[in-house]
Amino acid sequence: MSSGPVIGVDAGGTKLLAGVVDEDLTVGHSVRRLWSGGDRAEVLDTMVEAVSEARAGSGARAVGFGIPALLDFDAGVSISSVHLPLADLAFRDLMTERLGVPVYVDNDANLAALAEQRVGAARGASNVVLLTLGTGIGSGIVLDGHLFRGASGAGAEIGHMTIDHHGPPCQGNCPGRGCLEVMASGTAIAREGTDAGRRHPESALGRLVAQRGVVTGEEVAELALTGDDAACSVMAAAGRSLGAGLASVVNIFEPEVIVIGGGAAAAGDLLLDPAREVVAQRALRPSRDTVRIVPAALGEEAGMVGAGLFALADGRI
Amino acid sequence: MSSGPVIGVDAGGTKLLAGVVDEDLTVGHSVRRLWSGGDRAEVLDTMVEAVSEARAGSGARAVGFGIPALLDFDAGVSISSVHLPLADLAFRDLMTERLGVPVYVDNDANLAALAEQRVGAARGASNVVLLTLGTGIGSGIVLDGHLFRGASGAGAEIGHMTIDHHGPPCQGNCPGRGCLEVMASGTAIAREGTDAGRRHPESALGRLVAQRGVVTGEEVAELALTGDDAACSVMAAAGRSLGAGLASVVNIFEPEVIVIGGGAAAAGDLLLDPAREVVAQRALRPSRDTVRIVPAALGEEAGMVGAGLFALADGRI
Repeated sequence: MSSGPVIGVDAGGTKLLAGVVDEDLTVGHSVRRLWSGGDRAEVLDTMVEAVSEARAGSGARAVGFGIPALLDFDAGVSISSVHLPLADLAFRDLMTERLGVPVYVDNDANLAALAEQRVGAARGASNVVLLTLGTGIGSGIVLDGHLFRGASGAGAEIGHMTIDHHGPPCQGNCPGRGCLEVMASGTAIAREGTDAGRRHPESALGRLVAQRGVVTGEEVAELALTGDDAACSVMAAAGRSLGAGLASVVNIFEPEVIVIGGGAAAAGDLLLDPAREVVAQRALRPSRDTVRIVPAALGEEAGMVGAGLFALADGRI
Repeated sequence: MSSGPVIGVDAGGTKLLAGVVDEDLTVGHSVRRLWSGGDRAEVLDTMVEAVSEARAGSGARAVGFGIPALLDFDAGVSISSVHLPLADLAFRDLMTERLGVPVYVDNDANLAALAEQRVGAARGASNVVLLTLGTGIGSGIVLDGHLFRGASGAGAEIGHMTIDHHGPPCQGNCPGRGCLEVMASGTAIAREGTDAGRRHPESALGRLVAQRGVVTGEEVAELALTGDDAACSVMAAAGRSLGAGLASVVNIFEPEVIVIGGGAAAAGDLLLDPAREVVAQRALRPSRDTVRIVPAALGEEAGMVGAGLFALADGRI
């Protein structure tokens, strides 16, 4: 393994974080960008510009990218992406050329899962599933201590597991129906929160919706934490949908730990208790009794730290 | 590895097959039993009696069992079972004592998946998911050439993946709702086939139902193959439900091959084409384009051959 710091980049559905990650995993200078909903060229330019700023003067020797895409992992090619215009793109080659240092690329949630398993909420466990509730639902799966990526790198898309096959169409470029993502992502919580605010204009949620027209998933989570009933109901309903998905995850993977991250997960037990309850009611023994469902520990830095871990290991992780 | 033949036992939800399996995987003398819906003692006695008959004079040096249970794999303990009274049972120790030879035990569908991946329909592929549509839906998952069993051996229960979280209660001891098993198992096909026969008394399916009161999943499959419209519709609807589950399997595992076994799978493309269609419509790129969905090749012997493979390898597989 080479030595020296690297840049870890977490490029999510709506925002990017890029930072210097040292060999001891401390994060140095980091920068943040929001996508403007731009086309592919703008998204890539933003990535290059953000990495260049984070890297300036750091001596970083490589860049690890987590991107919200289904990949051909060995080739470093993004095949499809539900939330960004990154389909059929030789991402690693292109970024290597533009950045002039070795570049490694994996799915964003895979790398967040790696970070939470190595140094976060699932430290010490070998079988871990992470879901991040953001624009979509990203997921990463660690089996027997190693990231599971599917046959070529396009697997581990638990957010696109059907939980209601007569349900509404999914988001972005996903052709699915009733995917977990459309029921329990930050976007879904925002949608349900906005509806609930309109139905309950007297609630704090209702006042925010009246004032702003819409709310975000994070805002619903924050209002739930202040005790607003309307917001609490929205989080509880999302938690139950999440729980239906997690019951399947428990039956399929028998993980030791399920880590829930993303902005909406800030609601903590207001979201997780209803999910735990559904798992306890619906999943099979012994898995339902042994699994721990916990909030992410690394917050919004998880993906960036994971991307750093990945680049520090020269992409062999 | 020791040498000499072994006994492979496939104990499904409704029937048992036990046979001599030679080192080249040829199956010698085999016996079959149907469970009478008896209690634990009767089920275990039937197993012992069937193994003893299969083993007589064979010189078999070990017995491999596939049982429809969620296991503590290392301990050889059955923790829970949706379809047989095998909860909390030190199966391996008990059978070792009763049979007087080394005994190995795993989930029945795990071993069927192993057999199909090594010598059956998925030969040559390293990432394989098998579903058997029988009394329930058993599943086995081969990742990178190895059986994936979950943290302790209780995972890989894809039949108990929720595909309709507002759906009907699942079967047997499963506390879930809208599990794939309750929508697309042999039992579900039999239930829907019986209903369809009552609604269409003029059809061949209707005449069979009128005559017998109920039909089995295999019978619906057979009638569909003769071109009976009512039976074809039942198989197509089951295929679409199966497809909703398979779309999730494709997004989560990105398998190279999905193998569909069990009696109802005899309907072949009448079941699989609607499933393939849903996968093509609903799953993500590239996985939906690369996966092959194929019927099992080893027929009802898959589980027995897999149990034999497992015993031949002294349980280390």
